[in-house]
Amino acid sequence: MSDTQPQPVDLLIEARWVVPVEPHGVVLEDHAVAVQGDRIVALLPIAQARANYAPRDTVRLPEHALIPGLVNAHTHNPMTLLRGLADDLPLMVWLQQHIWPAEAKVIGSEFVRDGVELAVAEMLRGGTTCANENYFFPDAIGATYRKLGFRAVVGLPVIEFPTAWAKSQDEYFERASEVHDSFRGDALVSTAFAPHAPYTVSDESFARIRVLADQLDIPVHLHLHETAHEVEEAKQKSGLRPFQRLQKLGLVNDRLIAVHMTQLTDGEIAACAEAGVSVVHCPESNLKLASGFCPVEKLRKAGVNLAIGTDGCASNNDLDMFGELRTAALLAKAVAQDAAAFDAASALRAATLGSARAMGLDAKIGSIEAGKQADLAAVRLSDLETQPLYQVASQLAYATGRHQVSDVWIAGHRKLAARELVDMDVDAILARARAWRERIASH
Amino acid sequence: MSDTQPQPVDLLIEARWVVPVEPHGVVLEDHAVAVQGDRIVALLPIAQARANYAPRDTVRLPEHALIPGLVNAHTHNPMTLLRGLADDLPLMVWLQQHIWPAEAKVIGSEFVRDGVELAVAEMLRGGTTCANENYFFPDAIGATYRKLGFRAVVGLPVIEFPTAWAKSQDEYFERASEVHDSFRGDALVSTAFAPHAPYTVSDESFARIRVLADQLDIPVHLHLHETAHEVEEAKQKSGLRPFQRLQKLGLVNDRLIAVHMTQLTDGEIAACAEAGVSVVHCPESNLKLASGFCPVEKLRKAGVNLAIGTDGCASNNDLDMFGELRTAALLAKAVAQDAAAFDAASALRAATLGSARAMGLDAKIGSIEAGKQADLAAVRLSDLETQPLYQVASQLAYATGRHQVSDVWIAGHRKLAARELVDMDVDAILARARAWRERIASH
Repeated sequence: MSDTQPQPVDLLIEARWVVPVEPHGVVLEDHAVAVQGDRIVALLPIAQARANYAPRDTVRLPEHALIPGLVNAHTHNPMTLLRGLADDLPLMVWLQQHIWPAEAKVIGSEFVRDGVELAVAEMLRGGTTCANENYFFPDAIGATYRKLGFRAVVGLPVIEFPTAWAKSQDEYFERASEVHDSFRGDALVSTAFAPHAPYTVSDESFARIRVLADQLDIPVHLHLHETAHEVEEAKQKSGLRPFQRLQKLGLVNDRLIAVHMTQLTDGEIAACAEAGVSVVHCPESNLKLASGFCPVEKLRKAGVNLAIGTDGCASNNDLDMFGELRTAALLAKAVAQDAAAFDAASALRAATLGSARAMGLDAKIGSIEAGKQADLAAVRLSDLETQPLYQVASQLAYATGRHQVSDVWIAGHRKLAARELVDMDVDAILARARAWRERIASH
Repeated sequence: MSDTQPQPVDLLIEARWVVPVEPHGVVLEDHAVAVQGDRIVALLPIAQARANYAPRDTVRLPEHALIPGLVNAHTHNPMTLLRGLADDLPLMVWLQQHIWPAEAKVIGSEFVRDGVELAVAEMLRGGTTCANENYFFPDAIGATYRKLGFRAVVGLPVIEFPTAWAKSQDEYFERASEVHDSFRGDALVSTAFAPHAPYTVSDESFARIRVLADQLDIPVHLHLHETAHEVEEAKQKSGLRPFQRLQKLGLVNDRLIAVHMTQLTDGEIAACAEAGVSVVHCPESNLKLASGFCPVEKLRKAGVNLAIGTDGCASNNDLDMFGELRTAALLAKAVAQDAAAFDAASALRAATLGSARAMGLDAKIGSIEAGKQADLAAVRLSDLETQPLYQVASQLAYATGRHQVSDVWIAGHRKLAARELVDMDVDAILARARAWRERIASH
């Protein structure tokens, strides 16, 4: 006990359990998080928090686990409007006969805005507070995240053919630069280069990206080694595996967010660890598109930073990070042939701090620590689906449904309160989603 | 329009969509199901239903898909009380140091009753209306299902060592016979033989089971080829793969419910098809215990009847059949290296009619057809997580969370009404679950 006056703070969140993620594997009982402005001031036992702080507002979560907001490290959120448009098809039929024609009809600022808005509502209701976005029209996408108060790293697309977003290589880079400038210093929205994939981006563009990413100090978000076909085709064309080509181009470094990575030699895994590459595992997309199996446990043991992403709703078909981290934890064991592989705490860490680190945000978010942004999610564990309760981390990874998320904060702002979205007009969002469906389905 | 008077029925359920499962792949719009007593009388367009029937009660589901109740073809529901007790451990450590000691402390009629009650509440809230149960104390288990009005096939355990349930081989068979007799003619509860596994059951016991299963006309529910280790060990001991041994013993026939089956030669797949064996796929358990990958698409193409089960909550850790059929549909594609494999409609069929057929109940349940039992589940598809909606089957398989199940009927009785469990005291169930947790965790 202290003789000093209690310190005023904006918010005290008192929880039955707090899973801070850092230190790894810790579960704290009856702890509180004090928040001032956009930041976490302290994490301490409830009794001590009540003595030390005079909160303007208190939220009590007596049956809940408080966790860092989940961080979706790879998604194409405008495609939420294409959820389930065409499933159970071979990859090229799916892309060429369904997804690309649908996109061609509708792509533009309005489409991406409405798609992101629907996605933000879904993400918040599932405990996700940050997205690594990858789609065309990053200007409108970033503006939408900013308007909604949702944290995001917005990809600046580069691809070697003309699209509705840009007509030439130079235009892609010009627009990238403009969009990056427009979010400079933004509290919630930042940017990354998002070259589409090795098979759609030239050496010249990769070289420009390397220089610019260093100058702007931003990550490079890339689909890489998604399928065996991609690797084989590249070897036949150039004699190099895509990863080797990127090594030659100087892109294998700690800015690289390598998404999918289902095909990896032991040497490539060691090279990722040494260079500080982050690997984003998207297990449900890899399964659904029959892309292959990412060697998650090998990567973890090698010390590679692991992140988790849902991929877009056209290939998942949801933005459910609880489902995704569960699938990741389950699948890694069968792939490693080891039931002890990629345990609950490791999966939860990948879906929070690991994803944050991939995006260059681990100093700001991804764990519950004093000084970090107050991006938090509360999960109600009293439902019969999560009873009885022996191990909190187990319950979160293997039994919790995303609908058990009760409350969410981003930068100290409450975005979900007792399951209700704050300041979002759900009926309007749904009406717009249905209107897009009418346009897209009528072909 | 007809000149005759409308026919009185107990219930008319009017739904935006009905997915009858049979015929395969069909989605009906604006259809109604008429129910009289425990049976479906008709499935027809809403307008026609209103003209033909005078229902005592009408339930309108304007934003819902009505599906057959999901059928969980392999579970150990008393173990729901052990949910998440010990995870992320090698199989033998998990069994020998955690699960078996916990069971030894608590097993008995009270434990199985309270575990089944918690499981039934969870299953109903997730759209499941029937379980293929496999645990000790089938007398108390069956009585609990009967009391709760839940449909189940209760396994009659046979294992080659003494347990709290029976001390000798003869006693296992005597008790099996008693339990079978006590449920003869029951409307909801029937029995199956449940020899544990080839490595824990003798040839002599299998021979007795073969004769008795024929006499009693009941299925044989068996863990089979769960791991490569099981198959290898059997080959070393006897020179035979377990499946070959069962063929010799005459158990490879249409009574056999073969659970797991991660290790299968093409010849064994063909033999399953020819003999009418049903295979129960438990994808999440197989992943979590690193057991291996069941060749689901090969089995489907060979014409083998496929069922889906969650396995027990100690190795899953939930009874979520929506999650399980989604994992099955996703995983089968990666295993088959074919994004078109095991599509949404096939996964839904396996989780309903396929499971029913495995259990010998396909004449009674598993599809929405006149004359079948009214075992039904309604799924609300208006939530933003399932919008926009292009394909109903896709949405059910790839995007629906079990919390979107709004209403459930078993044999015409409403068991879940607008998310509320009918005639179940949830607080009492949870209190008992917590009391068991105290006993089990205090070691």
